[in-house]
Amino acid sequence: MEKSEEEKFRVRKLEISDKGKGFIELLRQLSVCDSVSDKEFEDRFRELSSLGDDHVICVIEDELAGKIVATGSVFIEKKFLRNCGKVGHVEDVVVDSNVRGKQLGKKIINFLTDHARSVGCYKVILDCSLENKVFYEKCGFEQKSVQMAMYFD
Amino acid sequence: MEKSEEEKFRVRKLEISDKGKGFIELLRQLSVCDSVSDKEFEDRFRELSSLGDDHVICVIEDELAGKIVATGSVFIEKKFLRNCGKVGHVEDVVVDSNVRGKQLGKKIINFLTDHARSVGCYKVILDCSLENKVFYEKCGFEQKSVQMAMYFD
Repeated sequence: MEKSEEEKFRVRKLEISDKGKGFIELLRQLSVCDSVSDKEFEDRFRELSSLGDDHVICVIEDELAGKIVATGSVFIEKKFLRNCGKVGHVEDVVVDSNVRGKQLGKKIINFLTDHARSVGCYKVILDCSLENKVFYEKCGFEQKSVQMAMYFD
Repeated sequence: MEKSEEEKFRVRKLEISDKGKGFIELLRQLSVCDSVSDKEFEDRFRELSSLGDDHVICVIEDELAGKIVATGSVFIEKKFLRNCGKVGHVEDVVVDSNVRGKQLGKKIINFLTDHARSVGCYKVILDCSLENKVFYEKCGFEQKSVQMAMYFD
């Protein structure tokens, strides 16, 4: 029996074998990521895994193709503000340009915001381009302020 | 001999005794922070200290008054993007309304961006209101995108 779209595109946490399934190539659709060796990948993977619930990267694998087609991450910032509150920061959300229109981005965002809520965050924040603003509004976000950046390289 | 303004307003890392010097009261000028017990403060302080260079909170103490008059924090996000790059996130910058106009905000930002650069970040980012945009531009930042938020409480 053929898998439903729902079964075909499950969200799960990043696994170390996902480098071989095009995870880095997918990130390249978002920003520069030209050279990550297996060793570098594994070191960073273990470093982030050691943070447990405080840094979660999720992916959607096209299980028929054995290919990672969507990803996103959230890390938990611990503050003194808001009575020692916690904030989820969503980063590096990308859906493979070949599989857009299947609500995979929304699945990723729901997974990440559910995680942030479950660990007790009082809010989740993210930065996006003006053109992606409508997508995030559909996911339940609203614009709060502006993002500023200083580049060193 | 009287201390110069430069000596009087040095930037240093947050210390556990700073709760008794008005650190929480200062944060209240930024957002809600109504009840943090000594125990909660110490627990959060130790939790953040254990992150070492990955989470730094700095303060400026008015040493004559024994009072914390400015603060800001930066935490280091580790990515796969940008060849396993690192990004500094600046949060919770506030200067006591009684000592504005002495460039203390700029000192705080310089301390935090210097830290991010020193640990190998390729950029530092922060979110701010439109009215604070000019201040951050003077500090060397430029607007990149918009900040979105989802509140749980």
